[in-house]
This record gives sequence, C-alpha cells and structure tokens, in this order.
Amino acid sequence: MANPIDFYFDFSSPYGYLASTQIDEIAARHGRGVTWRPILLGAMFKVTGGQPLPTIPLKGSYAVHDMTRTARMLKVPFKLPSKFPVAATAPSRAFYWVNDRDPALSKTLAQALFHAYFAEDRDISKPEVTGNVAAKLNLNKEALLRALEEPAVKERLRSEVDAAIERGVFGAPYIVIDGEPFWGADRLGQVDKWLETGGW
Amino acid sequence: MANPIDFYFDFSSPYGYLASTQIDEIAARHGRGVTWRPILLGAMFKVTGGQPLPTIPLKGSYAVHDMTRTARMLKVPFKLPSKFPVAATAPSRAFYWVNDRDPALSKTLAQALFHAYFAEDRDISKPEVTGNVAAKLNLNKEALLRALEEPAVKERLRSEVDAAIERGVFGAPYIVIDGEPFWGADRLGQVDKWLETGGW
Repeated sequence: MANPIDFYFDFSSPYGYLASTQIDEIAARHGRGVTWRPILLGAMFKVTGGQPLPTIPLKGSYAVHDMTRTARMLKVPFKLPSKFPVAATAPSRAFYWVNDRDPALSKTLAQALFHAYFAEDRDISKPEVTGNVAAKLNLNKEALLRALEEPAVKERLRSEVDAAIERGVFGAPYIVIDGEPFWGADRLGQVDKWLETGGW
Repeated sequence: MANPIDFYFDFSSPYGYLASTQIDEIAARHGRGVTWRPILLGAMFKVTGGQPLPTIPLKGSYAVHDMTRTARMLKVPFKLPSKFPVAATAPSRAFYWVNDRDPALSKTLAQALFHAYFAEDRDISKPEVTGNVAAKLNLNKEALLRALEEPAVKERLRSEVDAAIERGVFGAPYIVIDGEPFWGADRLGQVDKWLETGGW
C-alpha cells in the first residue's frame, strides 16, 4: 500500500472540519490512508501575518456565507460556533495523547471533537468539554485532563506544530501527497485527481 | 434567456486569468451569458487590508506553485509574468472604452490581454502594449491610446470599481449569479453546480 497522505488541520477551522468529512473517503478510493495532524493556525499566522477570516472586512462575512453554503452542498451539519475562532490547544493535545496510544481511536476522537464544535456548538477549547467528548468514546476523562497539563504532552503538540512550519505548512487544511502540497478544502477535487493520476 | 452572470476580475490576477478561460463555457452549458467586469484589486485591498499574494511569506511561493499546477491541469498556457503584479489601469480602461462601442469585441480584447500577460509575458500595464494587443484585433491603436487619458474613460473605470465595492466585491475573480456571490477560481465547480441546480 502506498504511503498515507498527511492531513494538517486546526480544530478551530471550519474548512478543516469540512475537509475532515471528506478526506478519508477520497484517499480510500485510491488505496491510501490518511495521517491526521492537528496544528495551531495561530502559530502559522505569526509567520505569514495571516488573520482569522471572520475579522477581515467583507471577506469575513463572505467566508461565513461560503462555508455554510459549502457545508449544505456536502450535506454536512454546520453552524458557525457562538465562540469562534478559539485556541485549539486542548483538543490538539488530547488528540496526540490518544494518538500515541491508539491512532485509530485518535481519529475517531478528532471527528467527534470537530462535530461537537461545528455541529453542536460546544466550546472544545475548554478542557472540560474536550474531556466530555473523549469520555463518550470510553476514554478516561480524568487521565486525559491530567495529560493536557503534562510537559511531555505539551511538547508533543509544540514539536508537531514546529515540524509542520518547517515543512512549509502555512494554513489549514493542508494536505501533502508524497511531498506535493495542497492548501484549502477547495483543493479536494485536485487532491482526488492527483491521487487518481499520480500528478500532471 | 436568464440574466447573464457577472464576472469580476483584475487583469493582473492569475486566478482571474484561469477563471476567464472557463467561465463562458460553464455559463453557456446552462444557457447563460457572462458580463465581464474588470476591476482594480488594489482598490479592494484598501478596504480589506489584503496584499498581493506573492508578497506573503510561504503563502506566496505556494500560490505560484498552485496557480501553475492548476493551469497545467486545465491545459491553459501560463507563466508567471516577469513583472508581477502590475496595476491594470490601462487594460481596464481599454476594455470599457471598447465595451461601450462593441461588447462582444471587448470580451475578445480581454481574452487577448490576459493571454498577452500570462502566456506571452508582455507587460499590459504599459498603454503601448495594451495598444498593440488591441491593434491586432483591428482596433485603432492611436484612438485607443488617446482614450486611455480621457476623463470620461477614467471615470467609467472608477465608477465600475466603486459599484463593485458597493456590491461587496472584495477580491477577484468574483462571480455573481442572480445575487449569489462566489469568490475565487476554486469556486467554479460550485458555480457550475449552482447554475445547474438553481442553488441548494
């Protein structure tokens, strides 16, 4: 089986959420797995001078319209969260803590966290909320909440973010197929075609 | 026949160029015409605080990679111009001057100008170059060069840009179907689907 593709995302990114509902199916069609890699967009914005979309005049309100319309097209439940954007530190640390123990379960957790934030309007930036989402998957909530404050877990996320920046990841979602980068949920069509054809 | 759709673009925008090679065919499939409307992105950036893509760290070099790859996929000739971006004042004024006389010819001129800049690396921001492109279409070059400096022609472009900003256009390409806005060449798939289904 060919190398898995890398899927970088921020738990606070609506387009990351939308992509997360499609990427595994697209990859599977072409016999590929997907390695999910949460990162923190805030760290990237320090390099690119980027800003959260909703804060930009005109572009911000269009973006909300666009993401809502795209979700409707994909038939994916979506509601812009009351608190948006948020710092995705807690869910991202939770992801890597679980990932080191059970990679498949960490992906299920990521999907549940995305759903909690973008479909149920629950503020996953709060450790308590991330803990509750994890508990539903039979993860030990108390152990998870303790892990979020462990230096090794903090360092795990930090090094993932640094490695992503080092690799040139400047936004999210960001997908890498055998070294070829694709930025944005709007590039999923090209990702599909690249996997099918091996590039053009 | 249903209302034509509006296609806003900047002659200096690579994604505008890429969209310009697709939009009429997409619209025609659904029995629609397209009204081409050159605008000046610089005026929009004053509102949104946007910057030309190539000036942004990381994002800029990715963007060049992405536009080149997308052009290759579409089988459209493309080479990032030596001087890029440029102020598209001259070609835009030329467009509206011709448009007031012969709308069909103005679209042909726009296609020739885009091709000159993005396929032949000719600097269309120079009135002389825009004049040469027009002359190839049997337009009177001397009359065109004089028109570029006429107050009425300058005002025509200015009022088009102001009307676009008033309407909420903040980037390019920007397509409006019966009031529904779509920003970016990457939304052409949704434009196609919207025209087909009447919206979702």
